[in-house]
Amino acid sequence: MASLFQSLKPPYYSVIFTSILKQAHDGYTEMAQQMEKLASQQPGYLGMDSVRNTEGMGITVSYWKDETSIIAWKNNLIHLEAQKLGREKWYQQYSLHITRVERAYHSSEPNT
Amino acid sequence: MASLFQSLKPPYYSVIFTSILKQAHDGYTEMAQQMEKLASQQPGYLGMDSVRNTEGMGITVSYWKDETSIIAWKNNLIHLEAQKLGREKWYQQYSLHITRVERAYHSSEPNT
Repeated sequence: MASLFQSLKPPYYSVIFTSILKQAHDGYTEMAQQMEKLASQQPGYLGMDSVRNTEGMGITVSYWKDETSIIAWKNNLIHLEAQKLGREKWYQQYSLHITRVERAYHSSEPNT
Repeated sequence: MASLFQSLKPPYYSVIFTSILKQAHDGYTEMAQQMEKLASQQPGYLGMDSVRNTEGMGITVSYWKDETSIIAWKNNLIHLEAQKLGREKWYQQYSLHITRVERAYHSSEPNT
């Protein structure tokens, strides 16, 4: 469920994860897909948008009901293992921003 | 200046712009580059990360000192014209989230 297609009423929370992959990142894609699925099953999960370009730079924004949901997801045991692999093997560089969504706007419908 | 390389102390603000381009989007790339440059010259601008994939989905996150800076940028006359073109010509769909950054973490240095 992508945030593009939601119209939830703020406030809620978002996690902005920006990263650059190393040239060699075996196993990353499979783990990313697994984490996306696992995140979507967590309490308080509202949606996610994820984009990576051909140079290996990516932005993933996940949306959550509250900060408690974010902390629970951060401390999920399978997710902790993925975070460790990311730091050690896959990411050249990354940043993480925990934010409170104050206002949200969506285009009314697909404009083809 | 990308947010990856910053270590500013929260709170500050971010604008998360998620979009899907139409197949035909003549003039979009040039305008996006011009807007990125213009944004970086606005008062309160802190940084920007932008990624678009080959399917036309993009996420741009810009970071700002406060909400006043975001409103001033939204109402910049050249930017207003670009927003109008985006809605009418370039974007199939988009969402915009105005958020307050509560916490931020950065990898210590490039991990090659």
